[in-house]
Amino acid sequence: MVKIVIVGAGSMAWSANLVKDLCLTKSLRGTTASLVDIDTERLNVIHGLAKRYAVETNADIAFEKTTNRKDALQDADFVFNTALAGGHENYETQRMVAEKRGYYRGIDSVDFNMVSDYYTIGGYNQLKLFMDIAKDIEDICPEAWLFQTANPVFEGCTLLTRETKLKVLGLCHGHFGYQRIAEIIRLKLRNLRVQSIGFNHCIWMTSFLYSGEDAYPLLEKWVETRSQTYWKDWTPKYHDVETSPAAVDMYKRFGLFPIGDTARSGGWKYHADLETKKRWYGPLGGFDSEIGWALYLQYLRRRMNRMIRTHGNPSIPVTSVLSPFTSGEQHIPLVDALVNDKKHVFQINVPNDGAIRGIPNDVVVEVPAIVNRKGVQRIHVGELPKRLMLHVLIPRMVRMEWALEAFLEGGRDLLLEWLLNDPRTRSLEQAEQAITDILGLPFNEEMAEHHR
Amino acid sequence: MVKIVIVGAGSMAWSANLVKDLCLTKSLRGTTASLVDIDTERLNVIHGLAKRYAVETNADIAFEKTTNRKDALQDADFVFNTALAGGHENYETQRMVAEKRGYYRGIDSVDFNMVSDYYTIGGYNQLKLFMDIAKDIEDICPEAWLFQTANPVFEGCTLLTRETKLKVLGLCHGHFGYQRIAEIIRLKLRNLRVQSIGFNHCIWMTSFLYSGEDAYPLLEKWVETRSQTYWKDWTPKYHDVETSPAAVDMYKRFGLFPIGDTARSGGWKYHADLETKKRWYGPLGGFDSEIGWALYLQYLRRRMNRMIRTHGNPSIPVTSVLSPFTSGEQHIPLVDALVNDKKHVFQINVPNDGAIRGIPNDVVVEVPAIVNRKGVQRIHVGELPKRLMLHVLIPRMVRMEWALEAFLEGGRDLLLEWLLNDPRTRSLEQAEQAITDILGLPFNEEMAEHHR
Repeated sequence: MVKIVIVGAGSMAWSANLVKDLCLTKSLRGTTASLVDIDTERLNVIHGLAKRYAVETNADIAFEKTTNRKDALQDADFVFNTALAGGHENYETQRMVAEKRGYYRGIDSVDFNMVSDYYTIGGYNQLKLFMDIAKDIEDICPEAWLFQTANPVFEGCTLLTRETKLKVLGLCHGHFGYQRIAEIIRLKLRNLRVQSIGFNHCIWMTSFLYSGEDAYPLLEKWVETRSQTYWKDWTPKYHDVETSPAAVDMYKRFGLFPIGDTARSGGWKYHADLETKKRWYGPLGGFDSEIGWALYLQYLRRRMNRMIRTHGNPSIPVTSVLSPFTSGEQHIPLVDALVNDKKHVFQINVPNDGAIRGIPNDVVVEVPAIVNRKGVQRIHVGELPKRLMLHVLIPRMVRMEWALEAFLEGGRDLLLEWLLNDPRTRSLEQAEQAITDILGLPFNEEMAEHHR
Repeated sequence: MVKIVIVGAGSMAWSANLVKDLCLTKSLRGTTASLVDIDTERLNVIHGLAKRYAVETNADIAFEKTTNRKDALQDADFVFNTALAGGHENYETQRMVAEKRGYYRGIDSVDFNMVSDYYTIGGYNQLKLFMDIAKDIEDICPEAWLFQTANPVFEGCTLLTRETKLKVLGLCHGHFGYQRIAEIIRLKLRNLRVQSIGFNHCIWMTSFLYSGEDAYPLLEKWVETRSQTYWKDWTPKYHDVETSPAAVDMYKRFGLFPIGDTARSGGWKYHADLETKKRWYGPLGGFDSEIGWALYLQYLRRRMNRMIRTHGNPSIPVTSVLSPFTSGEQHIPLVDALVNDKKHVFQINVPNDGAIRGIPNDVVVEVPAIVNRKGVQRIHVGELPKRLMLHVLIPRMVRMEWALEAFLEGGRDLLLEWLLNDPRTRSLEQAEQAITDILGLPFNEEMAEHHR
C-alpha cells in the first residue's frame, strides 16, 4: 500500500494531472493520496473532483485532504511538492515593483531562465518553503521520495540535495518539447529517439535519431529551406516556442537545439522589450512577454473556474473536464517504476555525479535515468559542446550558486551583487531602490529580515 | 654564458628596467642581451642607452640589437615578451571607435580587468603576435624560457601553455601593491609576510602577517576608524588605487583585500562613467579613467623623450635618467635563480595544476613559487573563499575562456556573444555596429579576416 502526498494540490497546475494519472494506473490501486493546501476552498475543490474522478474511472484510490502538512506526511512514501509560495499573485506584485525600477519582467528573469514564475534571487520565501517541507519529511517520513516539481527546480533540487539527506528528484515536462519539432518537420514520433540534457529549463538536444539515423540534417534542412516561409504569417500560441526564430537562433549560436522551456530564454537578445520579444517569438511575444504570460495566467484562472463550477455541480461528469487519459507527466509512472519494479527511462533532475562531464558532482543536472525498484541509475551522457558549456551552462550554474548563496547566507549585499551583474541595472541607486521596494512588500517580511 | 632576448624593447615600458637589473646583477656578468623591436629609431635609443649604462656601471653585458626576431632567438636561453601589437596608439584608436558606439573605455574593459591597455576580446592582433613569437621560439630555441610580460598575461599565458610546449612564465608587478597598504597603516615592510593569489590583475591577499601575527585586524581597524578621514581631502596620483574607497569596498564585498591592479577593476559599480570613477578613486578617477589614463600615457611619452634626449647627448650620464638601483622587477632575479641556482620565492603566472583548489589545471593562476636551477615549484596555496570564487574568479575565468575561444575559432559570432553579455550593450544593432567599426580599422585587416 503506497501513500502519496501532494503539497500545493489546491493550485491544480499539477495536481489535476496527478490525480488523473493515479486513477488511471491500475498497478497502483489501493494507493492513498493526501492532498495538502493552505487554501481550504481550493483544497475542497480538488479533493471533491478527485473522489468523483476515481468513482467515474473505477479507480481504487483513497483521496484524503488536509491543511496540515505534517499530518499528511505520516507514513508517506512519496511527496510531490508543487507549491508556489504566495502564489502567482505575489509573484506578479513583486514583478510589478521591480518593473517600476527598470527591471522589465522582474529581477528573477535571467539570461538562461526567463520562465515567468521561476524565482531565482527573489525567491527567499519559495526556497524557505522547500526547506521547511524537506525538514518535515526528514522528521516524519525520512525514507520517502521527494519529487520536486515546483520551480525553481534547478536551484531547489541543488539546495535540497546538498542540505538534506532526502531522496530528491526534480521533475519537469519540458523535455517533451522535441515532439513539436518533430511535428513541424514531419517526423513520426514512434521512430524518434531523442536525448536532451543540461539543467532544468536549459536542456539541449544532444541526440536526435530517426529510425536510428541522425535527424539533425533534416532539422538543418528545415531551418535553411523552409523556416522563413513557416514564419512568414506565423501566429503561434504563446507557448509555441519550440520552432520560434529564437530557438533556431540559439541553435545557430550554440550548436545544439534548445528543447522545451529552454527556448523561452536565451538571453536579453530576445527579451530586452516587448518589441524584441515579438521579433523572436511572434506577435504575442512568446510565453514570457506581458501578453503571453497574461494569457497563461488567464488560462489557469479559467481552468480553475471550470473546476470550481464542476465541483459545484455533481451532474457534470468530472471526466468531461479532466479527460480519462493519462497526462504524460512522469510522476505516477515513476512511482509505478519504483514500487512495481517497472524498469523505464525517465528524464529527471538529480545531482550530476559524473553524468555530464565538466559539471561539478553536487550540481543538479537534467538527464535521462533508468528507474526501477532498485532506484535511480543516471545515464552517463558524456559532455556538452564546449561552446554551450562556456556561454550557457557555466554562466547559468554561477547564477544558481549565487541564488543559493543568497538564500543560505542572507544579508542585503548578495542581492546587490546579483543586481550589479544585471544588464538592466543602470546605476547603484536603481539596484538599491529595487531591493528596498521588494523587501518592503508586506508578504516579504521574513525575507526582509533574512536579507537585512 | 646566458642569452636573453627582449622583444618589444623599443617601448622601454619594461626594457629600461630590465637593462638596469641585468647590468646591476653581478652573477649574470657575461650575459648577452639582444634587444628586438620593429621601430628602428626607438631600438637605437634603448640600445645606445643600454651600452652606455653598462659602461657607467662597469657591467659585463653584451647588448645587441636587431629588428629581426628570428635572428635574435638563435641560442636564446630566455625570451622576455614585452610587446604591445600596434602600440598604445592603435589601442586608443580602437577604444575611441568603441566609445562612439556606447562602450565607455572600449570593449576590452571587463568587470574584473579594467586595465586600459589590456586586450581581452578585441585582442586578435596581440594574441596572434604572442603565438607568432612562441612559434619562432619553438622552431629556433625550444628550450628557452618565455617570460610573458606583455598583457593580456592571464589570457596570453593560458593560451601559450595550452597551445605550445614552451616553458612559459607570466610576470607582473602588481603583487607588490601591498607595500602601499603597509605604508598607509604604518607597518614596517621588513616584518611583513604577504601572500596574494588569483589570476593576473585579479589577486587577493590571502595572508597578511606582521611579525608572524595576522595583520588583517590592523587593516580592518584602519578601514573602520581612519579611512574616512584619510579620504576627506584625498588627492591621489592616478596610480594610487591600493587604498581607494573602491579597494575597501571590494574588501567588504568579497572578504579579502584586492592587491595591485586588482583594485583598478571590481566591476562597473566603480566604472560606469567618469563621475562614478571619481567617487571611488578620487578626483582623477583612478588609473583607468580618461584623465588617469591620459596622465599615464603622458608619463610614458615624457619618459621616452627624456631617453631620446639623453641618447642624443653623450655628456648626460645615463645613470641620471636610469637610476643605478635595481628596479624590483622579477625578471632578472628569476634568471639568476634559474641559472645560478639562487633559490627564492617569486610571484608568477603558471598553469594551476592544483595550486588553487577549484580552478581547472589548465587555467593560468598567479601564485607564489619556489624557483631554483631545478625549475619552478608552485606553492599549493589552498583555496579562495567561496564568495570570491563565485563572484569574481569564476566569472573572470569564463571571460578568459571566451576570449581564447574567439581567438582560436574565429568568426564574427563570438565577438557578438561577448558584447551580448556586456552591460553597456543596449541593443543588438549597437553591438553589431561596434564590431563592424572595430573590424573596419585599417590596422585590423587580418583581425577582420579572422572574425569574418
